[in-house]
Amino acid sequence: MPKVQGYSFDTQHFIECGDEALEALREWRHTDRVNWIRIQGRPGVLWMRRYGEVLGLHPLAQEDILEGEQRPKMEPYDDHLFVVLNVPVLVHGRVVLRQLYISLHRNHLVTVFEGDRDPFDGIVRRLRQNGHDRLRRADLDYLFYALVDVAVDGAFPVLEQLDDQLEVLEENLIVNPDRRALGDIYRLRHDILLLRRSAWPQRETLGRLLREADEWIGETVRFYLRDCLDHAHQIADLLQTLADTSANLLDIYLSSASMRTNEIMRVLTVFATIFMPLTFIVGVYGMNFRHMPELEWRYGYPAVLGICLMIALGLLIWFRRKGWL
Amino acid sequence: MPKVQGYSFDTQHFIECGDEALEALREWRHTDRVNWIRIQGRPGVLWMRRYGEVLGLHPLAQEDILEGEQRPKMEPYDDHLFVVLNVPVLVHGRVVLRQLYISLHRNHLVTVFEGDRDPFDGIVRRLRQNGHDRLRRADLDYLFYALVDVAVDGAFPVLEQLDDQLEVLEENLIVNPDRRALGDIYRLRHDILLLRRSAWPQRETLGRLLREADEWIGETVRFYLRDCLDHAHQIADLLQTLADTSANLLDIYLSSASMRTNEIMRVLTVFATIFMPLTFIVGVYGMNFRHMPELEWRYGYPAVLGICLMIALGLLIWFRRKGWL
Amino acid sequence: MPKVQGYSFDTQHFIECGDEALEALREWRHTDRVNWIRIQGRPGVLWMRRYGEVLGLHPLAQEDILEGEQRPKMEPYDDHLFVVLNVPVLVHGRVVLRQLYISLHRNHLVTVFEGDRDPFDGIVRRLRQNGHDRLRRADLDYLFYALVDVAVDGAFPVLEQLDDQLEVLEENLIVNPDRRALGDIYRLRHDILLLRRSAWPQRETLGRLLREADEWIGETVRFYLRDCLDHAHQIADLLQTLADTSANLLDIYLSSASMRTNEIMRVLTVFATIFMPLTFIVGVYGMNFRHMPELEWRYGYPAVLGICLMIALGLLIWFRRKGWL
Amino acid sequence: MPKVQGYSFDTQHFIECGDEALEALREWRHTDRVNWIRIQGRPGVLWMRRYGEVLGLHPLAQEDILEGEQRPKMEPYDDHLFVVLNVPVLVHGRVVLRQLYISLHRNHLVTVFEGDRDPFDGIVRRLRQNGHDRLRRADLDYLFYALVDVAVDGAFPVLEQLDDQLEVLEENLIVNPDRRALGDIYRLRHDILLLRRSAWPQRETLGRLLREADEWIGETVRFYLRDCLDHAHQIADLLQTLADTSANLLDIYLSSASMRTNEIMRVLTVFATIFMPLTFIVGVYGMNFRHMPELEWRYGYPAVLGICLMIALGLLIWFRRKGWL
Amino acid sequence: MPKVQGYSFDTQHFIECGDEALEALREWRHTDRVNWIRIQGRPGVLWMRRYGEVLGLHPLAQEDILEGEQRPKMEPYDDHLFVVLNVPVLVHGRVVLRQLYISLHRNHLVTVFEGDRDPFDGIVRRLRQNGHDRLRRADLDYLFYALVDVAVDGAFPVLEQLDDQLEVLEENLIVNPDRRALGDIYRLRHDILLLRRSAWPQRETLGRLLREADEWIGETVRFYLRDCLDHAHQIADLLQTLADTSANLLDIYLSSASMRTNEIMRVLTVFATIFMPLTFIVGVYGMNFRHMPELEWRYGYPAVLGICLMIALGLLIWFRRKGWL
Ligand SMILES: [Mg+2]
Ligand SMILES: [Mg+2]
Ligand SMILES: [Mg+2]
Ligand SMILES: [Mg+2]
Ligand SMILES: [Mg+2]
Ligand SMILES: [Mg+2]
Ligand SMILES: [Mg+2]
Ligand SMILES: [Mg+2]
Ligand SMILES: [Mg+2]
Ligand SMILES: [Mg+2]
Ligand SMILES: [Mg+2]
Ligand SMILES: [Mg+2]
Ligand SMILES: [Mg+2]
Ligand SMILES: [Mg+2]
Ligand SMILES: [Mg+2]
Ligand SMILES: [Mg+2]
Ligand SMILES: [Mg+2]
Ligand SMILES: [Mg+2]
Ligand SMILES: [Mg+2]
Ligand SMILES: [Mg+2]
Ligand SMILES: [Mg+2]
Ligand SMILES: [Mg+2]
Ligand SMILES: [Mg+2]
Ligand SMILES: [Mg+2]
Ligand SMILES: [Mg+2]
Ligand SMILES: [Mg+2]
Ligand SMILES: [Mg+2]
Ligand SMILES: [Mg+2]
Ligand SMILES: [Mg+2]
Ligand SMILES: [Mg+2]
Ligand SMILES: [Mg+2]
Repeated sequence: MPKVQGYSFDTQHFIECGDEALEALREWRHTDRVNWIRIQGRPGVLWMRRYGEVLGLHPLAQEDILEGEQRPKMEPYDDHLFVVLNVPVLVHGRVVLRQLYISLHRNHLVTVFEGDRDPFDGIVRRLRQNGHDRLRRADLDYLFYALVDVAVDGAFPVLEQLDDQLEVLEENLIVNPDRRALGDIYRLRHDILLLRRSAWPQRETLGRLLREADEWIGETVRFYLRDCLDHAHQIADLLQTLADTSANLLDIYLSSASMRTNEIMRVLTVFATIFMPLTFIVGVYGMNFRHMPELEWRYGYPAVLGICLMIALGLLIWFRRKGWL
Repeated sequence: MPKVQGYSFDTQHFIECGDEALEALREWRHTDRVNWIRIQGRPGVLWMRRYGEVLGLHPLAQEDILEGEQRPKMEPYDDHLFVVLNVPVLVHGRVVLRQLYISLHRNHLVTVFEGDRDPFDGIVRRLRQNGHDRLRRADLDYLFYALVDVAVDGAFPVLEQLDDQLEVLEENLIVNPDRRALGDIYRLRHDILLLRRSAWPQRETLGRLLREADEWIGETVRFYLRDCLDHAHQIADLLQTLADTSANLLDIYLSSASMRTNEIMRVLTVFATIFMPLTFIVGVYGMNFRHMPELEWRYGYPAVLGICLMIALGLLIWFRRKGWL
Repeated sequence: MPKVQGYSFDTQHFIECGDEALEALREWRHTDRVNWIRIQGRPGVLWMRRYGEVLGLHPLAQEDILEGEQRPKMEPYDDHLFVVLNVPVLVHGRVVLRQLYISLHRNHLVTVFEGDRDPFDGIVRRLRQNGHDRLRRADLDYLFYALVDVAVDGAFPVLEQLDDQLEVLEENLIVNPDRRALGDIYRLRHDILLLRRSAWPQRETLGRLLREADEWIGETVRFYLRDCLDHAHQIADLLQTLADTSANLLDIYLSSASMRTNEIMRVLTVFATIFMPLTFIVGVYGMNFRHMPELEWRYGYPAVLGICLMIALGLLIWFRRKGWL
Repeated sequence: MPKVQGYSFDTQHFIECGDEALEALREWRHTDRVNWIRIQGRPGVLWMRRYGEVLGLHPLAQEDILEGEQRPKMEPYDDHLFVVLNVPVLVHGRVVLRQLYISLHRNHLVTVFEGDRDPFDGIVRRLRQNGHDRLRRADLDYLFYALVDVAVDGAFPVLEQLDDQLEVLEENLIVNPDRRALGDIYRLRHDILLLRRSAWPQRETLGRLLREADEWIGETVRFYLRDCLDHAHQIADLLQTLADTSANLLDIYLSSASMRTNEIMRVLTVFATIFMPLTFIVGVYGMNFRHMPELEWRYGYPAVLGICLMIALGLLIWFRRKGWL
Repeated sequence: MPKVQGYSFDTQHFIECGDEALEALREWRHTDRVNWIRIQGRPGVLWMRRYGEVLGLHPLAQEDILEGEQRPKMEPYDDHLFVVLNVPVLVHGRVVLRQLYISLHRNHLVTVFEGDRDPFDGIVRRLRQNGHDRLRRADLDYLFYALVDVAVDGAFPVLEQLDDQLEVLEENLIVNPDRRALGDIYRLRHDILLLRRSAWPQRETLGRLLREADEWIGETVRFYLRDCLDHAHQIADLLQTLADTSANLLDIYLSSASMRTNEIMRVLTVFATIFMPLTFIVGVYGMNFRHMPELEWRYGYPAVLGICLMIALGLLIWFRRKGWL
């Protein structure tokens, strides 16, 4: 069962209650106050069948909430505006997209957050403290803006964490590419692409709110929503930069590995090409033929050592000329 | 010969029949009931020549059905709206796109499904059971929506299977890249790209139905079609994510293989560069020259072993400094 | 000199002639019949200077035909509509794009095909056989459609061949990547990209014919041109799929090669790291030092063999633990 | 100092002069003749300060000419139309983009070409020869078209050269990839991308001339400019094909190199894995232990040779089964 | 605390002051002079709370300045036009994007530059020197243009530096790819992509200024802003070219490394395959079997050397045929 909280306020009053808000709403709705039903946790089918109508949600909006995993969108219905936003959170270092549903009605507003804790504690605190806060003085559409603003800006700390992780990878990448790092890049890149995919419709949703929701959102609040759209642009830009950087990283990683193979091969080749001829030569004079005149020579042994030295030096010079040393 | 079923219903009546529906349609058409001719299996040329006109299909629509392999599209003709959708199904683990043709006329609706079993059994069950089901109470356009909805949502289970397969590959990829996995990635990626290619015109078709088909689809049903379009967006998004993930996987796979080559080379190089000089040295003292004073030395043998040990240690230290050990 | 054929027909009459058609056209033009001048082979400058005006071609249209290698386009002039299409043909297994020029005038139509044989033999056969064929009954714009239809659909058999070739490559790719296959992929991919590049303006040309040529093409024929556009979409989709598949193939190819290198290296490394220490050891006891006490031992020889065996086994166990065996 | 030439003509007259044209223009401007000031070489600041106003160039147009390195664009000013085009030329086999500025005024036209020799010698020859040439009979806008046409078509020979170079690389690529070829591909690809980058705004400039310059260009000349736009499309298409082909080439190149490494490794591995065990075995019987009973055997030597042969054959059979031979 | 300077001028007067400008502005605002408040360094929250209103900045504009890291944008408010531009600067060879905020009010203009030194010293010098300079004679919107122009053109020197760095990398890339170069490419490419990401919204901002800011910018100044937009296009083009070139470089780099590995492998393989059989043969005749008849032969030794020579020559010929030498 989801957790329900209800707030009904104007500059003079501030009423706050729990589950009973769903009943109180029938009455609040006819006052001049701003009314907000805040739901945390995903509702089940039975819950929705019971309260969906009281909240004023169209059957298709109810279905979306029950299904979950919606992409960001804005859908005007006859008597309410239904908005879906994605709020990225980090769970054990991996990105998870949480759904936020905001339904803006003529005289009340419903938020449903898919996870345990929506990001609106700060707003409630502002509402409670002070009758002169802009939120207490303003209309329903300003509350709507404030909620959207918090939801959109929730992406920034997540992006910063991803950026930090990328930078750590970046640092020890060229120096020492190993296989564990590969898995890290893969996971990071997966999360970045996932976020980027959701940032585009989020941006579009905000753009449409600005252009098409004038039935629901007043002129003055629209300046504020433009700021949200601007932040959505910033987020999409940042994600594109992170995606580029991670692709870049992968390319560099690959190059760095093949560069190391190269160096290793060079060492192997230098050693092998020097010692193989020498080993052959000493092998020759290790043969047991009866008739091998060199074996009897007085300076045969130092001569062979000298030849070996000369071959080794010759090959070293050749390698140096090739730039392998 | 395709399998034909006919349904003619309103809240009071529910008539269901087989092949004879094609004849009955001439009469049904003039009643106030909702009439649906449901065809499963691809019709042949003779069949179409015989029944195409009764069904009210334009020659070009008939041709499309006979040809098969159409891309999703919506084509208004003078007296009917012709819609082609693609329904992905899994056959032996590979994706196959089945064609669904829906032709919406003034007073009847025709569906043709290319495969053995269209996905509409659930809808027929709802129709049969209950005179108060929304489908029995509503108009032809709501039946049209219900069919499109089922067809579009048919992609979700297929996508989930592909996603699961990707995840399995993902897990044992970095640990142990082998050549069979390559073939799996290739096949999976092929299917994902195929689906993605068909998801785009499907989405466009639904968008055009929403914008351009107001002659055929009423205002209230349009809210419901918007939900189908939303699902088509979700499907296209999911496919893009799968495509990105599979590209990502391939890059990682390649990197992982070259990383392993690297490690293998390092082992080989360390062994070879240590033992080649040593083998040379012992080869030297295996030569049979008469005059090799070292051979007579009391401690010649342990001296050589000592030199070998020192060379080996020296090289090991050098490799450790290079970070190869 | 290009081959010229002329056709002038209605339901009652069917006149067919050769080069003299160019003269006859002056008169045909003033009848109510449908008149078609069909030219196969690229005209030269002199030919064009002589007949260009009779045919009614604007100087810029003449220039395009003389130049050849035009991209698909539609250009309305004051008194005729000039259309360029690309017809892909296979010559010795490689794709070649042949130009087709169709010029639709008030009362006649000119086709110029760049190659030896245009794809219109089937249409002429239909014209000759039967006064009741739709082509004989209909107007100039329907003939125009029929020609465009044949030209557009000419791409399908070519695409199928390319697809078959891709599939053959695909099959023995992962199993056995060799260098000849690389050349095949390269050539195939080159042809696919070439075709794709021409499919886009072709599609655009048909779209513009549908939207902008209502001065030349009647309402009923426009349904039929929409079918051509649909086929052009299908062709562009297929080409994109082929392009994706071939890119995919190349990536797999590359990965497969590096995977094989990997396996080969593993075998080499296992052999080398086992035998190099052993060869060193037996080299030690092949030295000719006078004072090597082990040589005198009773069980020196089997001890050395035993040590060799133990080293080999130890390394094999180590490799198995590393997963290299 | 740039080289200045002036032409003032109609069907009857043809006046041609040098630097003095800048003065004559003040008077020519008030005649009914077509007046063209042709400047070759980039003007300096002083020159421009002195003559810019006589030529009728807006300060911003003057600045563009002085700066150089402009991208193709079309800019209408109050009293003239200023057009910048890029003309690619080959200098020592590398592509260089030369700027061409065309300024179309009410009654005169100015061309400034950044390099030593603009591509307009052919046009001047046509003007000189014949009072009945279309250029002599037509208006200022037709001269404008003729100049643009020559400038746009100047790209074709450059593209053909690049295509030829690509084909040469293509031929010996798969057979024998070496490092010099890499540098060639890099340079070629750099030039192709540079050209492609400039072809896009060039095409856009011509499109805008067609759509937005009706104040300056008459209806009949617009058919001709459409031909220029068509060529600009062809050029952009060709460049895209060249870019694709060169990317393709690079991928193949890389694959080919890794394929060769593969083959080389195979040879090495086959040799090494056969000879290393054999060398070990003969090393064993080269040891000097006193007690090695095999050494005394009558058929010890041929037995060892036989064992060596069997090991070699066994490994060869194994390699053949693995497909490495 | 940011550094504040104020300028108030017309052709007759030129007033310049420091922090006191913030107070003077209240009065200046009501004169006919052009008034510019120039702020260098990022303001803090307290500073903004104190002076934000005097400067006439909307709370959201104030917030943007306080936050920093804005993307380029243009936002009209009721009584001022707020523009954000990015000015790239090089700090220790790496690109850093500095924010420039320009706020254009009815009768004054505010610039805030995030860094220590904005790029406007040259403009102030022109203002001080000469009452007849265009800047002194013109209106507020021309000053606005002049500031935007300087800010946009600030990217050119940075781009040139990046281009030079790319060229240096390019030169020693094919010859000698090493691992340090990889890090350089990575860093360079990171900076180029970062700049490119900011160049797109910058260009869009200038385009919107041209199209949508006619309430703030007069017709004549709009010609000049078109020139800024043109430069923004040039910058975006250059960045795309740099991005392409750096991607190209990376591909070449990778290819070059694998080509070198190839060459190294070839040398190793040639040496190893020649010397391994030879070493085996001489090992055979180093065995100590009692019964080895060849050892007793008169010409056994030279025969073995001859066989070795023939094997070596045979292999060399084989390698040459394979093209490995
Ligand atoms: Mg839904
Ligand atoms: Mg879902
Ligand atoms: Mg915000
Ligand atoms: Mg904010
Ligand atoms: Mg970073
Ligand atoms: Mg890449
Ligand atoms: Mg069709
Ligand atoms: Mg088909
Ligand atoms: Mg659905
Ligand atoms: Mg549903
Ligand atoms: Mg996943
Ligand atoms: Mg890739
Ligand atoms: Mg042309
Ligand atoms: Mg041409
Ligand atoms: Mg067709
Ligand atoms: Mg057809
Ligand atoms: Mg296939
Ligand atoms: Mg790729
Ligand atoms: Mg300029
Ligand atoms: Mg410049
Ligand atoms: Mg031309
Ligand atoms: Mg021409
Ligand atoms: Mg070619
Ligand atoms: Mg080619
Ligand atoms: Mg690439
Ligand atoms: Mg690539
Ligand atoms: Mg902001
Ligand atoms: Mg920020
Ligand atoms: Mg500028
Ligand atoms: Mg300037
Ligand atoms: Mg350069």
